[in-house]
Amino acid sequence: MILTVTPNPALDLTWEVAGLHPGETHRVGTGIARAGGKGLNVARVLHAQGHDVLALTTVGGTSGAEFAADLAASGIPHHLVHVAGATRRSLAIVDTDAAEASVLNEFGAPLGDDEVETLLARARSFALEGSSIAGVAAISGSLPSGFSAEHLTALVRDLAAGGVRVIVDTSGPSMLDAARAGAYAMKPNADELAAATGLDDPVAGAHALLDLGARLVVVSLGSDGLMLVSRAERGVPVRARLPRALRGNATGAGDAAVAAIAASLRLPVEFDADTTEAATARRGLARLATGWSASAVLAPLAGSLAPNHRDLESEVFVSAPPTEDHA
Amino acid sequence: MILTVTPNPALDLTWEVAGLHPGETHRVGTGIARAGGKGLNVARVLHAQGHDVLALTTVGGTSGAEFAADLAASGIPHHLVHVAGATRRSLAIVDTDAAEASVLNEFGAPLGDDEVETLLARARSFALEGSSIAGVAAISGSLPSGFSAEHLTALVRDLAAGGVRVIVDTSGPSMLDAARAGAYAMKPNADELAAATGLDDPVAGAHALLDLGARLVVVSLGSDGLMLVSRAERGVPVRARLPRALRGNATGAGDAAVAAIAASLRLPVEFDADTTEAATARRGLARLATGWSASAVLAPLAGSLAPNHRDLESEVFVSAPPTEDHA
Repeated sequence: MILTVTPNPALDLTWEVAGLHPGETHRVGTGIARAGGKGLNVARVLHAQGHDVLALTTVGGTSGAEFAADLAASGIPHHLVHVAGATRRSLAIVDTDAAEASVLNEFGAPLGDDEVETLLARARSFALEGSSIAGVAAISGSLPSGFSAEHLTALVRDLAAGGVRVIVDTSGPSMLDAARAGAYAMKPNADELAAATGLDDPVAGAHALLDLGARLVVVSLGSDGLMLVSRAERGVPVRARLPRALRGNATGAGDAAVAAIAASLRLPVEFDADTTEAATARRGLARLATGWSASAVLAPLAGSLAPNHRDLESEVFVSAPPTEDHA
Repeated sequence: MILTVTPNPALDLTWEVAGLHPGETHRVGTGIARAGGKGLNVARVLHAQGHDVLALTTVGGTSGAEFAADLAASGIPHHLVHVAGATRRSLAIVDTDAAEASVLNEFGAPLGDDEVETLLARARSFALEGSSIAGVAAISGSLPSGFSAEHLTALVRDLAAGGVRVIVDTSGPSMLDAARAGAYAMKPNADELAAATGLDDPVAGAHALLDLGARLVVVSLGSDGLMLVSRAERGVPVRARLPRALRGNATGAGDAAVAAIAASLRLPVEFDADTTEAATARRGLARLATGWSASAVLAPLAGSLAPNHRDLESEVFVSAPPTEDHA
């Protein structure tokens, strides 16, 4: 089972308007409400691809009721920790004339100490106990006020100590804390990596995370695909990209990559081992993450892949690092 | 008791952003969700001013649950007809830098025949039966798909026949139907009146509604105040306005005027009689409607009056029509 943990979920509301004119009144169709937040997008992709997933997050208020109703309708197995603050909203107003979206993300209400402890206890319980323990856990998105870097560190450390492969996709200083705590894989984009490490070169930044304790770093590079760095590559990362540019909605592309990493990490291979098997597994992970990410760009809503994602996977060009050439 | 009927309510969602930049992502505070729609604004103002009011409207879906929760918290007595379609949303993104609001109004889901019949039956029941029958009913706002002009006509006719003074604040052809059905008072703005009657002169347009069957027509004129027309004025309407311009949020100003008309119509006076008492009552109505409307402009949210509304009322300049001068 793959556990997704979303400390700062959002009710995603999307409206379409033919021309957004600031200061004016517009008549629009009914907006779409969806249980969102990066970890929810990861869970959606995994569930749609047939993986056994459990989405763990918080929910509160009437916006939380709407969030819970959509999640129930989605069929994704989930567990909701009920909290006092209302689930934040994220608005996207899609201007169909300009082909651009104006987005308003609410900060969200702070979590209380008890609420954080309950969320952490549930994560440990679902990942480490019972009949369907998690081989992989993905912790995604921003941390709400009240959920500290220490909470993230403790969770990553406990899950890793229990044998769970933890993927962390967050930004800011907590990225470094997660690496120190022993995250198996991390998925920053190049800007987030540079901001957190202070290193402009993504290879150098990825190695900084490896030095802290992470084992795999997948750096997403937008339309340039991604690079995968582990100690086995000896400084020459695996590069993967589609040979052509895609137009579409990039929101959720990174979450699709995390979903692909989570699905890949279920393989019983040490991904940073210096073996042909591990090198093949790394190349497979890079191909899957690039293909799913590209496929998410073609799907209209975050958390979905376009139907042709298998064709895209096979189109991905993966560079062969020297470790494999000479194995 | 004053009954407000809102056939097409909305969950009003308001966010503030310092600079709305189309195509970009913004971080914002938590939006405010409020049970809205013109009739709800009327009920809010009346309730806050100590009047015995009952707000009747429909509610559906998860947005309807949020609507109902806010209405319950408001303390306004209300009755909700549960319908299958979700309560529509109305979004206001207030740009605090530009001092302007971008508004998106959802059309709303259609009402089914049974749902409309239930709403009409409840309106008749609350207005005409029981221990606290309504002396005044205000029907406000747009008509949702499924709620026809014939439905509006039948409701106005039934309530009027039962002795209820009905105020109708709507636009389009249904304005003419409401006048024909015997609405006691109507509150179009000048543009709505011109569009519905085809007459650019608001005095001529108001007389067209009187000719169809309405007894009082209050035409709101924005910062120019309002004019009140009945057959008693003999062609020279009562004019009321503040001697100074106000800056603020004009949303809900018309609803505050309707609330003032409703409060005034509880007086046991025939407002279109050719008597000194009636002329005084008309001038009082015009003063109150202008004062509350101006006060609503100064309040940040629709459905509220600024605390100084009594000062504003006393500032209103009301013109004396010839019928009073020579009574």
